[in-house]
Amino acid sequence: MKVTKGARKLVEILSALPGIGPRQAIRLSFHLIRQGQGFQKELGDAVRELEAVKICSQCFYVHENAGKLCDICADAGRDHSTIAIVEKETDLMSLENTGKYRGRYLVLGEFGRAGILEPDQKLKLKSLKTWIAKACQGSAREIIIALNPNTQNDFVASQIGHELKGLAAKTTRLGVGIPSGGEIEFADEETLGGALKGRG
Amino acid sequence: MKVTKGARKLVEILSALPGIGPRQAIRLSFHLIRQGQGFQKELGDAVRELEAVKICSQCFYVHENAGKLCDICADAGRDHSTIAIVEKETDLMSLENTGKYRGRYLVLGEFGRAGILEPDQKLKLKSLKTWIAKACQGSAREIIIALNPNTQNDFVASQIGHELKGLAAKTTRLGVGIPSGGEIEFADEETLGGALKGRG
Repeated sequence: MKVTKGARKLVEILSALPGIGPRQAIRLSFHLIRQGQGFQKELGDAVRELEAVKICSQCFYVHENAGKLCDICADAGRDHSTIAIVEKETDLMSLENTGKYRGRYLVLGEFGRAGILEPDQKLKLKSLKTWIAKACQGSAREIIIALNPNTQNDFVASQIGHELKGLAAKTTRLGVGIPSGGEIEFADEETLGGALKGRG
Repeated sequence: MKVTKGARKLVEILSALPGIGPRQAIRLSFHLIRQGQGFQKELGDAVRELEAVKICSQCFYVHENAGKLCDICADAGRDHSTIAIVEKETDLMSLENTGKYRGRYLVLGEFGRAGILEPDQKLKLKSLKTWIAKACQGSAREIIIALNPNTQNDFVASQIGHELKGLAAKTTRLGVGIPSGGEIEFADEETLGGALKGRG
């Protein structure tokens, strides 16, 4: 027995979304049916509101400004020659929430399982290269490769480092260490090794 | 830092859906933004297609028929005096997929954590009562309480049994046993006890 015709397309679309399997897609569709037309309209309208959201032509984060730049890239008060390269928009949000970073960003998009840069990710790095050549006279102050610290991302970071070679006075990665509130006893060797290296 | 204005409403709606937390809601919204307007329109249209889907007035499963009844309730070839009470639409689909059940259903909707029947679930049971009085001259052939076998549902089943007391020649539950392909060695005591009881 299959889901009813009117829900088939929705199930198909939902199961293609990241983190939603076919079973959850069916369950979600039944839920939406049960919620009734008022709720369905509200969801449809909310999806339509995304039309207003644009992608920044410089860092690829989202914005709703009249121009092509997001709030961060358009902010003249920020240090644009320091660039943090992040994987996801949510990583950028977390860094912004610290209130301790005043540079710009580059949102690369999620990495595949193999940890090899996709063609569109290489294009983004190339556009950063061009930008550094123009806006920073060929050399940025610092490029921070702000990826989750794990073995696969070490490989990704080395590819990024290779692509952007010679374009910044220094290239760094986020410090590995014991999370605030964590315990030395339970830290793995990589973490503790990082904490020793980053001591100060 | 918050998500951009145009996505705020969608994040709010998505995080209220079952099985989707606030973090996944944000990630999904960014994904939809990245997919662009073509994909957003497709999703919006698919949600709008749910308008065609109705809830059966008798068993509360979904349908798209002209009348008020779903395919199963409208099928004169089925044994309507045997009623399987299920929690979710997906449970009904699984039972239908066996091809071995020819009765009708009652879809109760998901139970809360406390395992106490909600007012709307009691209303559904009451409508079944009225239906049995009229369509089965006051007594159905069998009521199968087809809930996942677990301790909380034992409690739910006892409430259902209480509500429907005296309305069926017999009231049963699905057999507990070793799943096909499973191993005796790894079955817990409840399962193995059920398998012994249901031997034959």
